[in-house]
Amino acid sequence: MIQLRDDERLDDVLAEDLKIVQSPTVFAFSLDAVLLSKFTYVPIQKGNIIDLCTGNGIVPLLLSTRSKATITGVEIQERLYDMAQRSVAYNGLEQQIQFIKDDLNHMPKVLGYHKADVVTCNPPYFKTPQKTEQNLNEHLAIARHEIYCTLEDVVRVSSQLLKQGGKMALVHRPGRLLEIFELMREYQIEPKSVQFVYPKHDKEANTILVEGIKNGRPDLKILPPLFVYDKNNQYTKEIRKILYGDE
Amino acid sequence: MIQLRDDERLDDVLAEDLKIVQSPTVFAFSLDAVLLSKFTYVPIQKGNIIDLCTGNGIVPLLLSTRSKATITGVEIQERLYDMAQRSVAYNGLEQQIQFIKDDLNHMPKVLGYHKADVVTCNPPYFKTPQKTEQNLNEHLAIARHEIYCTLEDVVRVSSQLLKQGGKMALVHRPGRLLEIFELMREYQIEPKSVQFVYPKHDKEANTILVEGIKNGRPDLKILPPLFVYDKNNQYTKEIRKILYGDE
Repeated sequence: MIQLRDDERLDDVLAEDLKIVQSPTVFAFSLDAVLLSKFTYVPIQKGNIIDLCTGNGIVPLLLSTRSKATITGVEIQERLYDMAQRSVAYNGLEQQIQFIKDDLNHMPKVLGYHKADVVTCNPPYFKTPQKTEQNLNEHLAIARHEIYCTLEDVVRVSSQLLKQGGKMALVHRPGRLLEIFELMREYQIEPKSVQFVYPKHDKEANTILVEGIKNGRPDLKILPPLFVYDKNNQYTKEIRKILYGDE
Repeated sequence: MIQLRDDERLDDVLAEDLKIVQSPTVFAFSLDAVLLSKFTYVPIQKGNIIDLCTGNGIVPLLLSTRSKATITGVEIQERLYDMAQRSVAYNGLEQQIQFIKDDLNHMPKVLGYHKADVVTCNPPYFKTPQKTEQNLNEHLAIARHEIYCTLEDVVRVSSQLLKQGGKMALVHRPGRLLEIFELMREYQIEPKSVQFVYPKHDKEANTILVEGIKNGRPDLKILPPLFVYDKNNQYTKEIRKILYGDE
């Protein structure tokens, strides 16, 4: 049994044997969160993973299908935290996944410095605009705009949380790539691999996946590209495989 | 009539109505130089373009088919400069293309500060190794290793040569991408677009094309990817089009 509020739904998590609480007017997970969950390195048997800006907890849920590590999701919005809590309870994953409702900037003090194996984040993509330009829906505005955390907060906190050799994985937009590289190096996370996601073969990339290693050695790799749609505007085989496990 | 030395050949320049002097033991142009020549912006009717590390002059020859601008190639090696001079004379392009045999670090004084519309460069890709590891063939070693010029020299000199709003285009390896971005910003050239070249669909990129604008506004675009070989190890349609003009 689960209590659903307002326009909340209990949706399938792709083809996984999991359900997730979401709402079209508050928060629903995106393809970017799914791509991040497939892109990031995870320790298989043990360790700990922290997902910043976790929203309704989609990344921790997906990572639980790939890893036995403990996973901590951090979310500042009460409403999203509450959705994430109910999803984890519904799926019976309380032993593996915990959520913290707090400002991510407090996490090094709360969770400890230099203890995490992996930090993932699907952060707000847009710099904070004038109040008048912001999304009028407060939940969506906070998820999309750097109102409660900036890209620099995300990278600095990740660096403080990560062990030596620990990995950070981030999904973002190409226009922020230079800033991501600069911030990672400023905070001793060496960018090691990047994957570009193109909506179609002949279009510019609209999404980037970046992995860095705490105090890693410089040697950047550009992974094979991902295309989302084919010529007929259908998901490509590679995206169908990521979403539904189709072969 | 043309004088050919040693093992020099007079080769076709792709499908263009041009010939070029080259030699398997001294210097022969690469796919990377061709990709750079197609990637870079050129002014069509007038202006001036400078090609640093021009080798046997392949980039100026190819750019002459796209632009009426004057083109200056800079090469430090006497033997390559001599090949480039003979190629331009053979093709009757002395009015449009000139070569300078000199250290590129002297070019701002020789050619003037902040006068160029475009600077292109296919530089040596590798940091200078120990003497014992270098290519024993001196010509090839200079073309491949940063013996006479570093990446920083190339970017600094390009910035000194470029007008406000002028463009720099560079071909290099993914492992140097972070350094290229950092150097460009250090020398007021804002990276504006990057194209990744993958040997095949499922392989990591092995070549990058980067364009920056002198004092440009930050906004990086990731252009559609290029694939060199198809599943059957044949050139892809897009590469055949670049090389031979096939449709």
